[in-house]
Amino acid sequence: MPHIKLPEGLQGIRGALAFRPATAKPLNELAEVLLHAPNSLTAGERELIATYVSYLNDCYFCQTVHGAIAAAHLNDDEELVRRVKADFQYADISKKLKALLVIAGKVQRGGKQVTAADVDEARKTGATDIEIHDTVLIAAAFCMFNRYVDGLATWQPHDEALYRERAKRTAREGYVATSRDYLPQHEAAKQGA
Amino acid sequence: MPHIKLPEGLQGIRGALAFRPATAKPLNELAEVLLHAPNSLTAGERELIATYVSYLNDCYFCQTVHGAIAAAHLNDDEELVRRVKADFQYADISKKLKALLVIAGKVQRGGKQVTAADVDEARKTGATDIEIHDTVLIAAAFCMFNRYVDGLATWQPHDEALYRERAKRTAREGYVATSRDYLPQHEAAKQGA
Repeated sequence: MPHIKLPEGLQGIRGALAFRPATAKPLNELAEVLLHAPNSLTAGERELIATYVSYLNDCYFCQTVHGAIAAAHLNDDEELVRRVKADFQYADISKKLKALLVIAGKVQRGGKQVTAADVDEARKTGATDIEIHDTVLIAAAFCMFNRYVDGLATWQPHDEALYRERAKRTAREGYVATSRDYLPQHEAAKQGA
Repeated sequence: MPHIKLPEGLQGIRGALAFRPATAKPLNELAEVLLHAPNSLTAGERELIATYVSYLNDCYFCQTVHGAIAAAHLNDDEELVRRVKADFQYADISKKLKALLVIAGKVQRGGKQVTAADVDEARKTGATDIEIHDTVLIAAAFCMFNRYVDGLATWQPHDEALYRERAKRTAREGYVATSRDYLPQHEAAKQGA
């Protein structure tokens, strides 16, 4: 049971966002820019970084949602998502993404864990400064989202099918557009592009 | 030296925000709503929660900046800020804030650390659901901000006087207004109210 009275029937972060639309707005916009907006890292790559960090933080809701969104971006390759979580060094992903996942894993343990050598390694695989920046911020942001979701003990039904269909829509339309499903109407209107 | 090429002369998070205005916008708006907008928790109380979490995460820049902003809200009582960091149970703050700082400290370690008993304890001191929600989200957000600032190895001169004066202005005007000082002009304009 959630620690505070959240709107019923909304899973995970959605209940918390609907409870407090004033903070939902910047949170959804942050997810939109980091994960869905055009970027030299594909949306699939960015969702894999989010999924991996959420897995390290043991957040069922976030790793399931973002894993499903990653798969939706990656030809429904759920096995690849599982592989990245279990041991990304042996997953069928680029050397660049592997080097960025090393950085993301360090950020999850603490910002000071990231070394100049980690960043040099990423640069050697072709990572740009913006890609390194975004990797650090995606990993940091999921250290927030994961704690937000679990720190309120949000409702997280353990049924992956529930997450899969909605993930396809989020993969297509992004975070701000799909927030209209669960945010109070006048707030959703203010978020309109 | 920062891990990536950030604009020079901007301390801590400001360099990172100026480097990437698209993510700066929701990040500043989140800080504004959580720490500066009207709330039944005073701005001083909310800045103390941010300072305490940043101290636990060992982020020099964030604990110094937000400690200075907290002091600016609290009659320049820097000793109180130090006391909250060192041992808040013996600091001259309300029972409610002590109970909320217990929750914030749990969130810093991981969302699942927060127990129903911690939340009941906070409720007994008069904490509302929104205050509990905001405490969890402030603590979670600083687990992001701290990792962002340190994960990029931002420039953090160790001179508290540098932070004190600007803190007074942030305490008065908030995060979005003062971001016009360092965000590229056209982006700062877009952030305008």
